[in-house]
Amino acid sequence: MRYPNRIVIREVSPRDGLQGEPTAISTDDKVRLVDLLSASGVERVNATSFVSPRAVPQMADAEQVMSRIERRAGVVYDVSVPNQRGAARAVEAGADAIMVFVDASDEGNRRSVRRSTEESLAEAERLIAETRARGVAVAGTVGMAFGSPYEGRIAPERVVRMARRMVAAGAGAIALGDTTGEASPRQVAELISAVLEALPGVDLGLHFHDTRGLGMANVLAAMDAGATRFDASVGGIGGNPFLHNAAGNICTEDLVHMCEEMGIATGLDLDVLVEANRFLESLLGRPLPGKVAHAGRSRVPQILETA
Amino acid sequence: MRYPNRIVIREVSPRDGLQGEPTAISTDDKVRLVDLLSASGVERVNATSFVSPRAVPQMADAEQVMSRIERRAGVVYDVSVPNQRGAARAVEAGADAIMVFVDASDEGNRRSVRRSTEESLAEAERLIAETRARGVAVAGTVGMAFGSPYEGRIAPERVVRMARRMVAAGAGAIALGDTTGEASPRQVAELISAVLEALPGVDLGLHFHDTRGLGMANVLAAMDAGATRFDASVGGIGGNPFLHNAAGNICTEDLVHMCEEMGIATGLDLDVLVEANRFLESLLGRPLPGKVAHAGRSRVPQILETA
Repeated sequence: MRYPNRIVIREVSPRDGLQGEPTAISTDDKVRLVDLLSASGVERVNATSFVSPRAVPQMADAEQVMSRIERRAGVVYDVSVPNQRGAARAVEAGADAIMVFVDASDEGNRRSVRRSTEESLAEAERLIAETRARGVAVAGTVGMAFGSPYEGRIAPERVVRMARRMVAAGAGAIALGDTTGEASPRQVAELISAVLEALPGVDLGLHFHDTRGLGMANVLAAMDAGATRFDASVGGIGGNPFLHNAAGNICTEDLVHMCEEMGIATGLDLDVLVEANRFLESLLGRPLPGKVAHAGRSRVPQILETA
Repeated sequence: MRYPNRIVIREVSPRDGLQGEPTAISTDDKVRLVDLLSASGVERVNATSFVSPRAVPQMADAEQVMSRIERRAGVVYDVSVPNQRGAARAVEAGADAIMVFVDASDEGNRRSVRRSTEESLAEAERLIAETRARGVAVAGTVGMAFGSPYEGRIAPERVVRMARRMVAAGAGAIALGDTTGEASPRQVAELISAVLEALPGVDLGLHFHDTRGLGMANVLAAMDAGATRFDASVGGIGGNPFLHNAAGNICTEDLVHMCEEMGIATGLDLDVLVEANRFLESLLGRPLPGKVAHAGRSRVPQILETA
């Protein structure tokens, strides 16, 4: 297997992590989470989303979060938006970059935003061009890129075509989202190879969920296929609030720990991430799925002494 | 990455899975679990262990379990033993094969059996020779092969030397145990390569724990390095009862599901495994860590309709 010397982790716990939480999190606590992540050395944070407060009540304070977080030099604070109205709010609020997503699954896209994939893609093209014209970077996410519960597998050609159109419209980066946790390692490698072949040198991010226990195995297969950018969330929280049992993102601490063990640089400080995990666990009042925050680093005796 | 066309899964939930459970499981329920696993199509079951009932009370009924399980043709029912007395009991009880283990970590081995690695290895050599002389197969497990919380990493040469001695004594198979979940993918590949180079053609099993979230990633790296035999437990239960937070084995259903998605044959029936998961969850009265039994197969709409 081939592994990169370095990967870039995008922290999505403030947005993908919290959006499905049923109890309201205060703006103060969201700001504290983002600031803790910045302090961990992360290069990119998905800070919030500019969506309808009716659709996702947890993100109703997106403007306040953006105005109150500490903007560390070198950290890109991106935000997710579902449409042009959201993009305009995000630009106004000072986001460094905007993430627009379109599901490769027609039915999945309809259930999320009541439009076909083609309708959303056309809107995304306009959104990307307009946002770029205002001097703000845009990344395009192809959601359900590895399959959906409705249509089954998605043809790689469909994903490649969507990515190509978003890049042509001005997207500076592409992300492939395994929204409902359908991906498996062989398929991950195949889709990444197809995208990298069609769009050589594209800035490609991978967004996996651990729905069926394959999150970290998919990361490994993705690295072997040439990917170096991964979304992850503290504690492995997260999941689409419109889906039952979508399970969390891959866990940031566990990913950083794996990389440390493998000699792959991430730039993140595991101790600060564990602190962020403790903060989130106390905030949400339950143990989170991430393992390293509980088990500790490999080969450290403490795990035996606390029995 | 290279993947095999087929892997062999050894089911360890009746032994490694249950041994650390604090509440007594009835012999009837243990027998039902083993029989369910046999019905799933598994080729090899780690049915019980012949240890001191004082050390591991849960395994006190090893003889009764062995006498009451249904012995399906084609299934190897192996048992774990810590010493020659256990091996004699196991042979008497009709085990198809005996697993003897020695920890590569001196301190780990002392804490388990109050002997140095060298003392246990010498006893294992005698045990292997005597058991083989009685016509019963023996496999040697090198525990803590990937590191321990006491000494840190274990030199691959030490593991290779232990494996070589057990094979020379008559062990028909070798397993590498990541007893406390220290392994990471690059190291997994390196150690497997070292063992396969030193002992070409050896029947090599891998026993991973998911302590730090790397169980399935380690399986993937192991496959790429040429391994085709893996231990796993229904629901991902298990862990050394003497260790705090040792976390479960990799989950059988999740592994089988991954293999199905990747076109790797296992011979196991996922539906029967999910039934075994349900049985274990009701027996233990808590949700188990395995994911697929809850999320269902990939790309199946049911997971959305039950929200």
